[in-house]
Amino acid sequence: MGKKAKAILSRAKGGLGKRTPGVFKIVFLRHGESDWNVKNIFTGWADVDLSERGRCEAVEAGRMLLDEGFRFDIVFTSVLRRAVRTAWTALAESGNFAMPVINSWRLNERHYGGLQGLNKAETAAKHGEKQVKIWRRSYDIPPPAISASDPRHPSNDPMYRNVPKTALPGAESLAMTVDRVMPFWNDTIAPCVMAGKNVLVAAHGNSLRAICKYLEGMKETDVMDFNIPTGVPLVYELDANLRVMQKYYLLDDAAVKAKIEGVANQGKAK
Amino acid sequence: MGKKAKAILSRAKGGLGKRTPGVFKIVFLRHGESDWNVKNIFTGWADVDLSERGRCEAVEAGRMLLDEGFRFDIVFTSVLRRAVRTAWTALAESGNFAMPVINSWRLNERHYGGLQGLNKAETAAKHGEKQVKIWRRSYDIPPPAISASDPRHPSNDPMYRNVPKTALPGAESLAMTVDRVMPFWNDTIAPCVMAGKNVLVAAHGNSLRAICKYLEGMKETDVMDFNIPTGVPLVYELDANLRVMQKYYLLDDAAVKAKIEGVANQGKAK
Repeated sequence: MGKKAKAILSRAKGGLGKRTPGVFKIVFLRHGESDWNVKNIFTGWADVDLSERGRCEAVEAGRMLLDEGFRFDIVFTSVLRRAVRTAWTALAESGNFAMPVINSWRLNERHYGGLQGLNKAETAAKHGEKQVKIWRRSYDIPPPAISASDPRHPSNDPMYRNVPKTALPGAESLAMTVDRVMPFWNDTIAPCVMAGKNVLVAAHGNSLRAICKYLEGMKETDVMDFNIPTGVPLVYELDANLRVMQKYYLLDDAAVKAKIEGVANQGKAK
Repeated sequence: MGKKAKAILSRAKGGLGKRTPGVFKIVFLRHGESDWNVKNIFTGWADVDLSERGRCEAVEAGRMLLDEGFRFDIVFTSVLRRAVRTAWTALAESGNFAMPVINSWRLNERHYGGLQGLNKAETAAKHGEKQVKIWRRSYDIPPPAISASDPRHPSNDPMYRNVPKTALPGAESLAMTVDRVMPFWNDTIAPCVMAGKNVLVAAHGNSLRAICKYLEGMKETDVMDFNIPTGVPLVYELDANLRVMQKYYLLDDAAVKAKIEGVANQGKAK
């Protein structure tokens, strides 16, 4: 652990359990490697499970939470099993059992439309690395959409039977992901934080980006360079207006950097 | 699986996913062996984890649910880790990830008061097997209570900090357990069942007894002989007024009987 993080943590001793008055805390956790990450396939809303390595990352995240004594009052996650399994695993490992775990499709990964199920390197070879980078890295350009009549469209998936069909995407830009995530933040997660609850959100690279962009007042041009490492709890301390006072990972800086670079290199032609 | 159960299940094909109109279904799951079960210690509200065998029972329960295609919309469990871990394990094994898991102290095991932490055989040797049987098997006689000032009393446990102290027991008879469970059934679980949701309740021998007693209109003298085996999903089919139409285990009759007898023999002097 970095000296800075350690200093912060020693002040925050007792983790979320002992909250400084007027200071809210929230922990974000991005799921680890999935079976399709291994194969370098665009995943999005495809409900792919964690790989063995991804499961280990979730256990390690749980140990980091345990070491710092984090106790949660409520946990939010997407409806996708790689995020839910990450949550359950990290919670069990850190001895957090006595709190509800609530799912929402609004915390799902960005929907990758017609690219879902395609190998990233092959897609790059076919469409050009430049086009893939535009789809992956532009703020408001969605990839090719799946039509509502396509069996792969979420409106045809029983998992989303209780969501109005017209609310479900066939493809999303990051901008569309932000618009889809924020109502759940504003209406459900933020009220829990502001009520003083100790909250964990276990979700995906882009749904977490959406929330962090909002919290940090990040520019659209900057959010694409904001990469959260997988399997490392990210703690935000917030004031009464949910403005960021400080943030830190429960891992030292060098290890965080190495993890981020590993993910950022996905989608290259080889 | 017994012929009868198989016949019922073939009619119910698709498990909870395809509900016959006018018929509600609910599944109960009692957690498997805990570390204190192994040592034959009175557990109650002590937050003891599953043993290795208990974890295997949860996996097996998940496979039974998977084999019959059960899909859940919402899951309820106690705040005790042996029930929560049973729920998470069986859900992961059966591919059920996209539903909330809600905890309540009202689904906790019966509180065993001053007997908690004591070896059952030693307690039987000390107080006599007859007295222990009275505490274990009478409907309305609670064991010796822990006082509210005792650090072991739940009102002094941070896990129950959001529950009014006077609502928390220092010991319970089965009658008191029933009175504590039923508000959660009536106000929270039953409305979900009646809304057509596919519900799993993963809990404990006595909190599940409380609900089944109510559903079956069981007499107080009969409920003590009603034993639910650990780690075997118990399915109730209910009519519009939540009257029992039929019930069955997802395991053949002989195996269910053997499991029940194993548990019933606990608490003998040796």
